[in-house]
Amino acid sequence: MTTINSEQKLTKKGKETRSRIVAAAAGLMFERGVAGTSVEDVQKEAKVSSSQLYHYFKEKRELVQAVILFQTEQVLGAQEPLLSHLDSMEALQTWRDAIIQLQVDREYQGGCPIGSLASELADMEPAARTALAAGFLQWEQAISQGLRAMHARGEMRADADPDRLALALLTALQGGLLMTQVRKDICALEAVLDAMLEHIRSYLV
Amino acid sequence: MTTINSEQKLTKKGKETRSRIVAAAAGLMFERGVAGTSVEDVQKEAKVSSSQLYHYFKEKRELVQAVILFQTEQVLGAQEPLLSHLDSMEALQTWRDAIIQLQVDREYQGGCPIGSLASELADMEPAARTALAAGFLQWEQAISQGLRAMHARGEMRADADPDRLALALLTALQGGLLMTQVRKDICALEAVLDAMLEHIRSYLV
Repeated sequence: MTTINSEQKLTKKGKETRSRIVAAAAGLMFERGVAGTSVEDVQKEAKVSSSQLYHYFKEKRELVQAVILFQTEQVLGAQEPLLSHLDSMEALQTWRDAIIQLQVDREYQGGCPIGSLASELADMEPAARTALAAGFLQWEQAISQGLRAMHARGEMRADADPDRLALALLTALQGGLLMTQVRKDICALEAVLDAMLEHIRSYLV
Repeated sequence: MTTINSEQKLTKKGKETRSRIVAAAAGLMFERGVAGTSVEDVQKEAKVSSSQLYHYFKEKRELVQAVILFQTEQVLGAQEPLLSHLDSMEALQTWRDAIIQLQVDREYQGGCPIGSLASELADMEPAARTALAAGFLQWEQAISQGLRAMHARGEMRADADPDRLALALLTALQGGLLMTQVRKDICALEAVLDAMLEHIRSYLV
């Protein structure tokens, strides 16, 4: 966790510069992929010198790790306050609607910023894979928290497994975001999220 | 459809060489991504000269289109004869088991060869996106055919929508394959496929 430690030691100005580099890298990698983004591209986009960039990130690999953490924060943050309170069918429906609206607003571009990095890096960069799995786990646990609350309040049948339902829902969402990007329509995402919400509803008492 | 036309005009030996190039390119692109695979890499892997490669594919873009068609054939072909007969819960369950077993055998590497190309190319290469969407549609229709048969035989409730269920199931599968690759375990794929099959089962009469 070199990156986190070095971040903590930075001055306010240093943190701002580092953040600007990470945001620039995240934007470029989201558009063109990691392989399609050079350190020089990031340097130009962030308007920093190569020695400045090197001061914060000794190699592209470190920058990629920072981008994964950044995108996890962005993606999960963008779903708040909904994501932390998915403890009713109404809340799940509102969250579903918001995710779908976001894809429509984006004209079906980009897919999931975490999912796209995952598809590119999971088999090639062990450290990136670990960070991406951690990001997905954080997301899954946020969903799970809401479903567990429903279960604990006795609103779900005792035989329901909130953790497994949460994992299935996040997984379905990932498929939906990928298919949206390929199809350039919302049908697949709607179909899979509606099927999953109906499945969850089937466990209500 | 330049590629298809030129393929038709080839001699037997020409077709073999072309196939060898496409298979080599597909293998490399599956491992390293499209951006991580140069035409020179393909040339070496397929053991052809650069002029031979150029004879079949004038640019990398054409090679990528051929790889998409190749992977669609491979992925759908590997699911046969199951995929063409998904017209019972038993058949769906057998198909689910086979897909899961394949990921276990592969040690959770690679994800879906079509899905990985899709994630990388969908927003960058319009022609690739179209070919990938067509590949997914072919897959979706194969699933749909089975569910429609169940519906037509009156085994599913009249209000079931076999086409939407098929789309949701393929979408869920895509999410599951991506999550398998990131997590290096089978839990997410199992959870999402089981949820979807249970959802389909809820429509049985």
